[in-house]
Amino acid sequence: MKFCCHCGSASVSFAIPEGDDRPRHLCGGCGAIHYVNPRVIVGVLPYLGERVLLCKRAIEPRLGLWTLPAGFMENGETSEEGALRESWEEARASIRVDDLYTVYDIPHINQVYLLYRGELTDTNFGPGPESLEVALFREEEIPWDEIAFPIMTKTLMHYFSDRKEGQYRLHRGAITRKL
Amino acid sequence: MKFCCHCGSASVSFAIPEGDDRPRHLCGGCGAIHYVNPRVIVGVLPYLGERVLLCKRAIEPRLGLWTLPAGFMENGETSEEGALRESWEEARASIRVDDLYTVYDIPHINQVYLLYRGELTDTNFGPGPESLEVALFREEEIPWDEIAFPIMTKTLMHYFSDRKEGQYRLHRGAITRKL
Repeated sequence: MKFCCHCGSASVSFAIPEGDDRPRHLCGGCGAIHYVNPRVIVGVLPYLGERVLLCKRAIEPRLGLWTLPAGFMENGETSEEGALRESWEEARASIRVDDLYTVYDIPHINQVYLLYRGELTDTNFGPGPESLEVALFREEEIPWDEIAFPIMTKTLMHYFSDRKEGQYRLHRGAITRKL
Repeated sequence: MKFCCHCGSASVSFAIPEGDDRPRHLCGGCGAIHYVNPRVIVGVLPYLGERVLLCKRAIEPRLGLWTLPAGFMENGETSEEGALRESWEEARASIRVDDLYTVYDIPHINQVYLLYRGELTDTNFGPGPESLEVALFREEEIPWDEIAFPIMTKTLMHYFSDRKEGQYRLHRGAITRKL
């Protein structure tokens, strides 16, 4: 942040405000404190029978790799609404949500993932503008070496494990930077 | 947003960018798109034996009303770390987290709540700068008419109900604007 979005001043510093305990962008002009907080990514693990839907990414990062439909939650929607919106945008998929399935923090990139589990209501899916391809995979067909993000690998592994046990439960955890 | 925080230009409009489907703050100077996303509130329901810890708010909104310790999640922390940080800041409480307990969306104020359930490790708690008073309450002592936020009332009700059933489970939902 180089300029204050309230007053336009160029005297924005990064310092600890009085009474706070961490640095913020502070405007020397109008005194505004600009907070920056983690963002929420919402998505779905869509399944049909024994198969799971994946999207091949048409955009960076991880162009050409496979992922579950997910994206930034928008203002004015619930996380479930956002998850369904992303499924439509990326995979033209209609889904009946079962439940919230994985809650993962990724603190080094300031993200929180809320992924739902839900059944496809039909097979009329297909790539939206951000996907090259959309397809259903059985467990043994999953391209494990070509999954775009670790959170998606974890969610898929939880799913196939829970499926074998015959019981789905919420999984939560954190993905930290590789050391 | 009146000025672009990247280039300082005053020509910021609120319009739908090309390829998008909702209005954003757009800079007519440098072309930046400024996204605004929901914020995450993290907190804890701290219990000890049959009692639950509540904080009497020393700040607006809802000054003088009671709440569970909670606040905005910060960059660089996990939701559980943030929940413990808030418990310390507001109630000087040390807690051993059991599990994630309530996940609630409040779409009309662009917030997602992630509240954990955890046991107090000792009784050395007390008001932090944002609390007037911190105290333990049995179910029949809870000041139900003086709880600061509906999400906190819901979480407390879930807790005492689950407690009677002898089994705690994650609760999720949305709190929408009263019509």
